Amino acid sequence: MPQFALTITPRSYELDALGHVNNNSISAWLEVVRTRLFEEVAAAESGGAGFGWVLASLHIDFARETFYGHDVEARVVDVRPGNSSVTIDCEMYQRGEKTVFGRAVMVHLDPDSGSSSPMPAAVRSRFASYAAPA
Amino acid sequence: MPQFALTITPRSYELDALGHVNNNSISAWLEVVRTRLFEEVAAAESGGAGFGWVLASLHIDFARETFYGHDVEARVVDVRPGNSSVTIDCEMYQRGEKTVFGRAVMVHLDPDSGSSSPMPAAVRSRFASYAAPA
Amino acid sequence: MPQFALTITPRSYELDALGHVNNNSISAWLEVVRTRLFEEVAAAESGGAGFGWVLASLHIDFARETFYGHDVEARVVDVRPGNSSVTIDCEMYQRGEKTVFGRAVMVHLDPDSGSSSPMPAAVRSRFASYAAPA
Amino acid sequence: MPQFALTITPRSYELDALGHVNNNSISAWLEVVRTRLFEEVAAAESGGAGFGWVLASLHIDFARETFYGHDVEARVVDVRPGNSSVTIDCEMYQRGEKTVFGRAVMVHLDPDSGSSSPMPAAVRSRFASYAAPA
Repeated sequence: MPQFALTITPRSYELDALGHVNNNSISAWLEVVRTRLFEEVAAAESGGAGFGWVLASLHIDFARETFYGHDVEARVVDVRPGNSSVTIDCEMYQRGEKTVFGRAVMVHLDPDSGSSSPMPAAVRSRFASYAAPA
Repeated sequence: MPQFALTITPRSYELDALGHVNNNSISAWLEVVRTRLFEEVAAAESGGAGFGWVLASLHIDFARETFYGHDVEARVVDVRPGNSSVTIDCEMYQRGEKTVFGRAVMVHLDPDSGSSSPMPAAVRSRFASYAAPA
Repeated sequence: MPQFALTITPRSYELDALGHVNNNSISAWLEVVRTRLFEEVAAAESGGAGFGWVLASLHIDFARETFYGHDVEARVVDVRPGNSSVTIDCEMYQRGEKTVFGRAVMVHLDPDSGSSSPMPAAVRSRFASYAAPA
Repeated sequence: MPQFALTITPRSYELDALGHVNNNSISAWLEVVRTRLFEEVAAAESGGAGFGWVLASLHIDFARETFYGHDVEARVVDVRPGNSSVTIDCEMYQRGEKTVFGRAVMVHLDPDSGSSSPMPAAVRSRFASYAAPA
């Protein structure tokens, strides 16, 4: 199983009035991870990293607060492609402790009709290679 | 049952590369709604709108894309207070169509220990007044 | 001389760690004002509010801090169109006191070459109608 | 003369509707650079990186568009401390070409009165070590 991870450095302007990284920045970081994954897996078939896909739902558990001054490691821990959608699970860690779990469901769109359509088999297969071990 | 709703005007810089309001802005708008609700319900007891509460989880369904040029109406549709946490459901509408469903779970913290603690009874009661009709 | 003003409601997530509206939000609000002005003045000729124009420079004086809980009134106080660029001066007020002065220089681009090109005479004339009285 | 530089990786959500990094993100990146400089130069004396200082003015020249997919190098090119304020000049480069020049004026505040006050001599001296060569 290939690994997909990237390092995010919190930026000073991402702090809230209490001195923690604000929740919206974490939602935005999850998008950074998803976009990078799509660049690897689906860009060739869909004419660009984000084209042809739309975010249908997003779930975030904030396990712990995220602080400024220490890098965050984001890891894709499971990817479950269906026929026309894919579920992507991501975890974030700071100083060895889990801070965030995020789950996104992305839907593949037919560029002409704008409605959901089956993803190319090659994309599904590449997504499946990131599935968590059974 | 009291109503809690507010109007949000999309800002031009909130558009993504495809010309729709980006998902992070919608996550941020949900925070605007929650904060306003807390200002009404819990500010007096917790020393400020956001103090003493932390976001534990967030779920968003993106039912439809949100566009620039038309106001969005955000409505709190259900509030379910527990002992030390509260679940807040919000819907957003643009031009009469539902664009977003968001559910947030907020946890009340003891300011000294930083761990979860029962919310004041007056706060729970005010939250409960926003519960959806059975 | 026509007036151009709009009201901005600070959002809770725009506060910095010190409890004031952060500087980046103010920079973003100035963009909101410029975009609205372009929608009135230049959209018809340039195929959309922001198309065909690029921000060349931005200057902001932060006269006073901006707070949450009170609306901000943004006023375009002077517009000086040149041949292929326009300078737009904006002031912001909160509770009657000036908080911000912002000056933006926008350049009109030829959509084909991507280099600066004279703006249409009708656009220049509409911009000039917002010039400060001599 | 010590050097002060850092690398910024554009994030996918920082693109505008035209596919370039939006101007507000660049304003935010300049804040990242300033904050890091203050962490090195002034944090010890002011009780934290941003405490005791306020942004008085900001000027940005957008020399060229910034793209996604390539790192940006931000360099502090001149620092000119006065009695109670400091001017910080920063340049950004992407793929070897200058994209941004930014100038910020920060004012040192007396924490009690909230009005401007002379910065500590040790801070002024450390700022001066980053001045451009004559």
